[in-house]
Amino acid sequence: MILKMYDLAGAQSDRRFSPYCWRIRLALAHKGLDVETIPWRFSEKGVLEPSGQGRVPVLVHNDNWLCESWVIANYLEEQFPDRPSLFGGPKGKALSYLYSTLGDYHASQIVRMVLMDIYDHIAEQDKPYFRQSREQRFGMTLEEVVQNREELLPIFRDSLFPLRAVLKSQPFFGGDAPLYADYALFGQFQWARCISDFELLAVDDPIVHWRSRMLNAFDGLAATAPAY
Amino acid sequence: MILKMYDLAGAQSDRRFSPYCWRIRLALAHKGLDVETIPWRFSEKGVLEPSGQGRVPVLVHNDNWLCESWVIANYLEEQFPDRPSLFGGPKGKALSYLYSTLGDYHASQIVRMVLMDIYDHIAEQDKPYFRQSREQRFGMTLEEVVQNREELLPIFRDSLFPLRAVLKSQPFFGGDAPLYADYALFGQFQWARCISDFELLAVDDPIVHWRSRMLNAFDGLAATAPAY
Repeated sequence: MILKMYDLAGAQSDRRFSPYCWRIRLALAHKGLDVETIPWRFSEKGVLEPSGQGRVPVLVHNDNWLCESWVIANYLEEQFPDRPSLFGGPKGKALSYLYSTLGDYHASQIVRMVLMDIYDHIAEQDKPYFRQSREQRFGMTLEEVVQNREELLPIFRDSLFPLRAVLKSQPFFGGDAPLYADYALFGQFQWARCISDFELLAVDDPIVHWRSRMLNAFDGLAATAPAY
Repeated sequence: MILKMYDLAGAQSDRRFSPYCWRIRLALAHKGLDVETIPWRFSEKGVLEPSGQGRVPVLVHNDNWLCESWVIANYLEEQFPDRPSLFGGPKGKALSYLYSTLGDYHASQIVRMVLMDIYDHIAEQDKPYFRQSREQRFGMTLEEVVQNREELLPIFRDSLFPLRAVLKSQPFFGGDAPLYADYALFGQFQWARCISDFELLAVDDPIVHWRSRMLNAFDGLAATAPAY
């Protein structure tokens, strides 16, 4: 069995920074599945055509081309039921979905603080597309999006209150060990540290300790990736 | 077996409005447990003394006096393991805690929009304590806390994005049927509607449909309570 994953890369091909790809990298490690990751750049939408769309992660398993991190996580759980569960059962799966959508919400907050840092790390051939598409999405220049990031930071940190409160009582959102819930929330923090030295968390935040545990999981899979 | 619960009441003794008490009312219904609810007011801290603190919900089971909604939910799950699970297993329990802390966060947002409505509904003897304690907590008068609620509303609604995204795909956070996760999030919406006609949700919000399903659960336990 060969699993392949198209994984968003920067100018440097081992700088893998997509939050959604990180969710799946960790989910694959959780399942003990080897994967061949293929560095992919925004300008290579054509190679994803069999998946029917143009965004990563795309996982290729046998002849199946899968996209969207939540769909891929569900696929892995169904295809590899004898390996460690990502959700802890059917109820756990239902409960895990909010972690995925909460991670998406965090991504929408974080992007307003690190958008220029992404731009600075992507390949030259990706830059015109990235600038044009993001400036259209935000209705302003990349530079304008991030100009008040120091004001957004305390709002973001305050919104993490629910995560902080959980981590005061248990080491992972999944309990004593991480589950997909953890990967879905961690992806965004890993994304940010892969392309930015902007400190999203205060040093004494309990979330920092959880992030360290996540970085060190699976023999430091996330910790050893090029990052700040 | 007689279960008793001290339940926050307004001037009208059947106006039960604590978000945390509602979480437990629904958890008890989920377990199929009858409970005698005792209307309790802020000025009656003395009667809660056996619980070692002064806030509701307080559940009395045999000689055990329990407080804090998450602790009570865990107690119910342990004491009544043969009845429908609130969490869907140990992993589900770990995953459910974020719903409780997220509910707490929503409460901290909602209170800034409905604080005067609470004041208007509580018993006369509770009013001096309520005003003094809340004005101290917020560092301003009750009237000042809620004066910009129209500006807070879109921020609150935006922050509900993760809930909305889940409810587009599944009827409850617990999947096909509600779990404690649902009760932990619903408590705050029930709280607001028990004491305020301020519309927290837009009429076309998918969260409204979930709220209706929750209102109608357990023969309309929440729907039939005095409310707006």
